[in-house]
Amino acid sequence: MKLQLDQDRLFPSDPATRDVARALYEQVADLPIISPHGHVAPSLLVDDQPFPDPAELFIRFDHYVTRLMHAAGVDLDALGIPSTSASMPVASPREVWRTFSAHWQLYAGTASGYWLQSTFSSLFGIDVHPDESNADALYDRIQAALVTPEFRPRALFARFGIDVLATTDDPMDDLAAHRALAGDPSFNGRVLPTFRPDAYLNPATPGWSSNVGRLADWNGSSVSSYAGYIEALAGRRRFFVENGAVSADHGVFEPFTLDLAPSDAASLFDRALTGSLTAGEARAFTGHMLMESARMSVEDGLVMTVHPGVYRNHSSETFAAFGPDTGHDIPVTTTYVENIRPLLERYGNEKDFHLVLFSVDETVYSREVAPLAGFYPSVYIGAPWWFLDAPDAVARFRSAVTETAGFYRSSGFIDDTRAFLSIPARHDMARRLDSAFLARLVREGRIAQPAAERIVRDLVDALPRKVFKL
Amino acid sequence: MKLQLDQDRLFPSDPATRDVARALYEQVADLPIISPHGHVAPSLLVDDQPFPDPAELFIRFDHYVTRLMHAAGVDLDALGIPSTSASMPVASPREVWRTFSAHWQLYAGTASGYWLQSTFSSLFGIDVHPDESNADALYDRIQAALVTPEFRPRALFARFGIDVLATTDDPMDDLAAHRALAGDPSFNGRVLPTFRPDAYLNPATPGWSSNVGRLADWNGSSVSSYAGYIEALAGRRRFFVENGAVSADHGVFEPFTLDLAPSDAASLFDRALTGSLTAGEARAFTGHMLMESARMSVEDGLVMTVHPGVYRNHSSETFAAFGPDTGHDIPVTTTYVENIRPLLERYGNEKDFHLVLFSVDETVYSREVAPLAGFYPSVYIGAPWWFLDAPDAVARFRSAVTETAGFYRSSGFIDDTRAFLSIPARHDMARRLDSAFLARLVREGRIAQPAAERIVRDLVDALPRKVFKL
Amino acid sequence: MKLQLDQDRLFPSDPATRDVARALYEQVADLPIISPHGHVAPSLLVDDQPFPDPAELFIRFDHYVTRLMHAAGVDLDALGIPSTSASMPVASPREVWRTFSAHWQLYAGTASGYWLQSTFSSLFGIDVHPDESNADALYDRIQAALVTPEFRPRALFARFGIDVLATTDDPMDDLAAHRALAGDPSFNGRVLPTFRPDAYLNPATPGWSSNVGRLADWNGSSVSSYAGYIEALAGRRRFFVENGAVSADHGVFEPFTLDLAPSDAASLFDRALTGSLTAGEARAFTGHMLMESARMSVEDGLVMTVHPGVYRNHSSETFAAFGPDTGHDIPVTTTYVENIRPLLERYGNEKDFHLVLFSVDETVYSREVAPLAGFYPSVYIGAPWWFLDAPDAVARFRSAVTETAGFYRSSGFIDDTRAFLSIPARHDMARRLDSAFLARLVREGRIAQPAAERIVRDLVDALPRKVFKL
Repeated sequence: MKLQLDQDRLFPSDPATRDVARALYEQVADLPIISPHGHVAPSLLVDDQPFPDPAELFIRFDHYVTRLMHAAGVDLDALGIPSTSASMPVASPREVWRTFSAHWQLYAGTASGYWLQSTFSSLFGIDVHPDESNADALYDRIQAALVTPEFRPRALFARFGIDVLATTDDPMDDLAAHRALAGDPSFNGRVLPTFRPDAYLNPATPGWSSNVGRLADWNGSSVSSYAGYIEALAGRRRFFVENGAVSADHGVFEPFTLDLAPSDAASLFDRALTGSLTAGEARAFTGHMLMESARMSVEDGLVMTVHPGVYRNHSSETFAAFGPDTGHDIPVTTTYVENIRPLLERYGNEKDFHLVLFSVDETVYSREVAPLAGFYPSVYIGAPWWFLDAPDAVARFRSAVTETAGFYRSSGFIDDTRAFLSIPARHDMARRLDSAFLARLVREGRIAQPAAERIVRDLVDALPRKVFKL
Repeated sequence: MKLQLDQDRLFPSDPATRDVARALYEQVADLPIISPHGHVAPSLLVDDQPFPDPAELFIRFDHYVTRLMHAAGVDLDALGIPSTSASMPVASPREVWRTFSAHWQLYAGTASGYWLQSTFSSLFGIDVHPDESNADALYDRIQAALVTPEFRPRALFARFGIDVLATTDDPMDDLAAHRALAGDPSFNGRVLPTFRPDAYLNPATPGWSSNVGRLADWNGSSVSSYAGYIEALAGRRRFFVENGAVSADHGVFEPFTLDLAPSDAASLFDRALTGSLTAGEARAFTGHMLMESARMSVEDGLVMTVHPGVYRNHSSETFAAFGPDTGHDIPVTTTYVENIRPLLERYGNEKDFHLVLFSVDETVYSREVAPLAGFYPSVYIGAPWWFLDAPDAVARFRSAVTETAGFYRSSGFIDDTRAFLSIPARHDMARRLDSAFLARLVREGRIAQPAAERIVRDLVDALPRKVFKL
Repeated sequence: MKLQLDQDRLFPSDPATRDVARALYEQVADLPIISPHGHVAPSLLVDDQPFPDPAELFIRFDHYVTRLMHAAGVDLDALGIPSTSASMPVASPREVWRTFSAHWQLYAGTASGYWLQSTFSSLFGIDVHPDESNADALYDRIQAALVTPEFRPRALFARFGIDVLATTDDPMDDLAAHRALAGDPSFNGRVLPTFRPDAYLNPATPGWSSNVGRLADWNGSSVSSYAGYIEALAGRRRFFVENGAVSADHGVFEPFTLDLAPSDAASLFDRALTGSLTAGEARAFTGHMLMESARMSVEDGLVMTVHPGVYRNHSSETFAAFGPDTGHDIPVTTTYVENIRPLLERYGNEKDFHLVLFSVDETVYSREVAPLAGFYPSVYIGAPWWFLDAPDAVARFRSAVTETAGFYRSSGFIDDTRAFLSIPARHDMARRLDSAFLARLVREGRIAQPAAERIVRDLVDALPRKVFKL
């Protein structure tokens, strides 16, 4: 089956609207990429080694891809994911690729399918859809490209036109990779760390006490000192800021915030270290630490991003065998209005505080996030994330938030990806979808075309720079 | 940038559908306006004074407009809203207008932007979008119009073709303005009061006890008499009915109803007067009073409208400084099925009882409101309200409710506005959107064109007259 | 008003998309019907008697139809529904039909209106919309057709091209009708029973104890033996399997599951028989029995379908007078992620276990059901059901689930109907809507046309056969 990218893909079929969409898209198609939140490892660019093989590149680490094959009955080790316990042999990259090719039809209509076919075609010049008969040939073709200099990470970084790329990092990370890149005169890109402190804030996280211990060691304070803990967190944030960080990211189960007195917080902290908190107390402490994180953001200027509402590791069996990020994180009902209120009561009207609220429960967009961002100067609407980072979901998102909050309260596109090669396809998708949405508004007489042209450019450039203080 | 209203605005771009939409719209474009629920002050029409200036007319009182500038970092006093406590000078109308003009791009794609550009163009003949360079000229142009006789409220009322306009009034209002209008032979419009008793029903409302005191005084009963309280409410409703009211409106946090024994209700009432109710008891009493309101509606015939699900005054700081209705009321999750059941168990099948259920949580439309209205003869589906009163949201609403409940269980359009000048633009928007929705169904072979023509007329005329007993 | 079926009905109006949709639809328009879940009585096909009259055929038993007239103020007895208590005369079939004809406009835009007009036109050759003036003539026309051999149930079964039809049956049903059909050499259709045990699993169901008694009698075990109860349920499932059943259906208020120790379950069972369970304990026992049902499905291979989230018999008054299934079952908020987790922890990765999750709360589709089905090999996405089985709702459903789960995790169409004559119109609707959805994706460059052709065929044939093990 022929694979050919439609130049007008994602534009509405109606010819008049399609013409407007194409004209808007042409304004932004070639603008540099700003990626203020994602999961690419900085070492990729420091090392600048060739990608090993198509399976590792496209399949093994992409739980969007592996989960659909798992649902179809393929075991995860057959997809190259090593089991944490078993001595079972992991499939070879070529076997993984063959399995994937045989299941390619599963991805029709999915976000992953869209990105993959974009990448296959535009980066590797592949003009057929993968299937069992061509699996080996495509594997060889991709493999042959990967060993060329043009496919080294830095070459791709330049070719993709990436202006800014933010990574996601542990608070105790030494940021050596970031410093190496910043100090390397042969590399011009801007690669920024992001402070991601969940495992240091939520006592219910496995390893929380030892993380607290590492903070205390670094800070030279006693493990049991709540003041030292707070000081250490602030100190690590400063270290991140010094190394270029612009944001701190919070992946929480619920966006619950609570304003505890320092003495009450300290008392919960003490008991958390002994492992004696009830679930309710752990929730209270976590909510308090989200408040404290906001306070620190007001002080140090780090943009605060909140990614709530995911039930992580839903399948214990899979988690035990293959670890986290293996495809069974499931969204839950999310609500911000009362949960986030204590935080907004304190910091919502702070003018240099930026709080970007994401959701994987799309009911929140029109009901809560757009109204909040339409009033509080600090609040911005996070782009559709994870399961919602897909053409129809993005269209629903724009429809849900724009009539209340306009275009200028949204964060701009965020790719949130660990799949480096998918970055241009994702940003291109967002640009096409915003062009399509605006084109409809133009055709419905709701926005003048010059205004739409300005907006589509601002969504790609001015807005992410402003929201993320770039 | 040129501002020009597209004659086909809000119609689908597809030419065949657009043709049908235009033909349907032509059936209703010039029908009189029926506005059975809104917030225009009746004194506006009694006094019939010129509107003072563009800022007061379009900005200061419209929290849809001010909140987006606030989100962009503009202080509310810079928008002409006087602070309740500070001695800070409030911006002059011309300054307010300049600020607004400089922020006009924020409204692109919003409901407010749509109404404003409609009004600027069709009422004031403005043919450019506001910006910093033309702010003074536009201000002067609008100001010059406002002092002419054609822009007096009564002249506009006639020009807008308003047949019925309902206001929203305090239960103790003397309705003098309504009587003055009804008794004025030089004014032919029908301006009806609406009974809005929330502050008299919910003990958690600030001022509840003094409101109860005012009721008792009027009724000549003891403040502490629950029977007198009920009697006084019924009496005030009768007074409203005598002065033309057709509905009672209930703005509640949740549509919770409860069937308390009178003695239990009386006991809660007693303790409410002493301020000793728990939150749960206050909720119970409020739920009971919603039941009592339904009982009174069954007796006196007032249509009962319920507007639930808004967290009022989310920002305490803003509330303290600028008062209510300043842009930080945020929708919350709403559910009707179990909450409203006690009320429907008693009165749901009463044939002359009309209960109109609104929501700002749009998940409720397909899940709850359409199914309820599709069975109970008393229940009607309230039009999309507040944040949802916008083109895409209205399209989602029609899509969500029609397949279950058809067109004849919906309330017809309700503008709910305090912005008098926006009334024709809002009703015109609703007519265009219903035409567009019906046109799609015609083109998809789901409705015959003659049926669509009848429906679009009924939505504008027969339905609101029936639902609101006009 | 002329009634004429548009050959392109439900296809998008845009000509290019419409062409693709038509081409896809032509691939599947005439494929046999697979109906793996519904409520047609098997005796209909055993007896093969003429349908008595238009009112009984189209109105009396179809609560989709009667509820909208009830909402319009028509009493249910005027629609031919006998009151359980009153001596009130029930309207004659011709009167019922006249009432319905006079209210035909209520159905414009509804799912019922769509099915009815399809059936009137394609089965009875009716070319006018019902109204008061033609009610008698249409009644006579339909009646005249019903007495012909072509309109006997078996003739229609053949004419409709039904390949498989599943019924829904009480666990203690003797399945004589199914055996009669299977043993009748003159009938070639495949009519399968479905095990529907709710009234035997949930102690809060009226009649639960006597149902448990019937199970025990059949099993020859003591009523009070929990082990006997479990054994009897397993035995009845085997009896269903022996008689061709492929699935067990669970209509639960919430999809709550719980993993109780057998001794704890037995103890709740004992107390349930004495009627002394609290509401929480009844919930726990019901959740446990949903777990047990999954265990049995893993053992005996019956596909487990879950239909949660309906508040049954919302109006006590109507229930008392007219019984269940009279139009006042109302959807409630549903959530699967934590409720179903205990079940998935045990059986989610079992490869021959099939669990089909339905919802009438459409927020669940993108947030929960698609992510769950996109990982667990056992989980399939149930087709839009009940209030959501309608053109726009189906389009929203496909949009909500496809980008996460693709097409191959959905169940295929399920008509779920007791209206035998509507079966072809419903399946035709589903085929048109899937063609329309796929056509848009083709036009947006997201799916290649050959892939869309394969998918549309698989949705009609391969998928329901696979999911329901046919």
